[in-house]
Amino acid sequence: MSNTGRRVAAVVEYDGSDFAGWQSQSHAASIQDAVQQALGFVAGHAVEVSCAGRTDSGVHALAQVVHFDTGAVRTPREWVLGANTRLPPTIALQWAGEVAADFHARHSALRREYRYCILSRSSRSALQRQRATWIHRGIDLQAMQSAADVLLGEHDFSAFRAAECQSKTPVRRIESLRLSRSGDYVWAGVVANAFLHHMVRNIVGTLLNVQSAADPAAAMRAILESRDRRRAGMTAPPEGLYLWHISYAERHGIPAAEGGLLLRPSG
Amino acid sequence: MSNTGRRVAAVVEYDGSDFAGWQSQSHAASIQDAVQQALGFVAGHAVEVSCAGRTDSGVHALAQVVHFDTGAVRTPREWVLGANTRLPPTIALQWAGEVAADFHARHSALRREYRYCILSRSSRSALQRQRATWIHRGIDLQAMQSAADVLLGEHDFSAFRAAECQSKTPVRRIESLRLSRSGDYVWAGVVANAFLHHMVRNIVGTLLNVQSAADPAAAMRAILESRDRRRAGMTAPPEGLYLWHISYAERHGIPAAEGGLLLRPSG
Repeated sequence: MSNTGRRVAAVVEYDGSDFAGWQSQSHAASIQDAVQQALGFVAGHAVEVSCAGRTDSGVHALAQVVHFDTGAVRTPREWVLGANTRLPPTIALQWAGEVAADFHARHSALRREYRYCILSRSSRSALQRQRATWIHRGIDLQAMQSAADVLLGEHDFSAFRAAECQSKTPVRRIESLRLSRSGDYVWAGVVANAFLHHMVRNIVGTLLNVQSAADPAAAMRAILESRDRRRAGMTAPPEGLYLWHISYAERHGIPAAEGGLLLRPSG
Repeated sequence: MSNTGRRVAAVVEYDGSDFAGWQSQSHAASIQDAVQQALGFVAGHAVEVSCAGRTDSGVHALAQVVHFDTGAVRTPREWVLGANTRLPPTIALQWAGEVAADFHARHSALRREYRYCILSRSSRSALQRQRATWIHRGIDLQAMQSAADVLLGEHDFSAFRAAECQSKTPVRRIESLRLSRSGDYVWAGVVANAFLHHMVRNIVGTLLNVQSAADPAAAMRAILESRDRRRAGMTAPPEGLYLWHISYAERHGIPAAEGGLLLRPSG
């Protein structure tokens, strides 16, 4: 049986809290290893999975997108149900389907959306301890949004790039960076063609800093233009970060994320 | 130092997943034990804590209310911050304050609100595995609400009462029982003067059953009037259940719950 006859894509939700991150590690449990083992079981042969965006330890995903090659013929339902019985409770396939041979989870992605959740109140949360980053300061949403707007468009994001980042270029294009408040929570949603390593967490850490500056937009512009990582803020913790959605050309047939977060009932 | 000079109340949030429930157990970790140890450390003497509503293993609380007597003089901030440094990450005090000597977390409660979260979609959730009960069937919200409406008011709820329930009477008054949908989630919010053991979970299990009956309201009425536990549905799992709010007379000064669940950003 050929292992390369078909290309299959899948959408994966996970709670990153207990993993060393997406990528296979020799010394620690990775999400990639768990997904490969489960899909390999369903396929009946070892599979190697490529993802759209590697996430760090503690970072979550509502809809990570992966692809792999297989000779096995399975229905979408067989891939999803079969893999989910072999995956730990912290990882769950949401969708699977055959895709064109030229589909690539990372290279075919047109844009990525991450969202970052901040809990701003006087006491920490027991229920959301691994789902949101707690700060006991208040947040000035308008000040923060004015600083965020500076980052829109194509820029050299060296100031927000981790030292270990392996990308050839520090230039990225942020299409949208919106802040919104819901009760004690503030969400930052950011859409870009692609992201540098730690870029979202470094932007969020910097937004939390510059919101209290006299002119938050000017402070952010100075940091961006410096291209100097030491000028920007701390890397915000991983637990508030979600890989939310990856966009592809419609012909690939990858479904939009259904949205898997717990909703507060109205009223 | 007297241990009984002052009565202090506190609001406690917890993730019930890893506990044997609220009440102290000889053989397993309870939330009560953890809260008593933390408050006892701040007080400088052993404290015994009474709660508004004992929750089962796996059941969460946004705002459990407790009281205890102490001779220690501490500010609200000292109680909250001091206890939170000694509590596990899965438990967090949200408020504390001195109350009148006649305040009693359970006896002074005017009404209780629980909410139950059901995730209705084809595949399980990784992120909400301990926060919502997953069913792969669909939910007919209108059918379910028509059955729920039958339970409003004062009734003998023997059909929804666990065998181990120690209450003297099976009569309770449901003031409100509302179903709402948010994306793939359905919430059931129920307010009553008090609840029998497993009453919310038995009502939810029964609502899930009767929603597909030809006449859901008639089916629910027959079950209620039978007063027979065997006629009602399964006890719904604990992980979808939240002790949401306890109401007291305003003079006691217990704050309303701020609402601690993760909110999905709009758009």
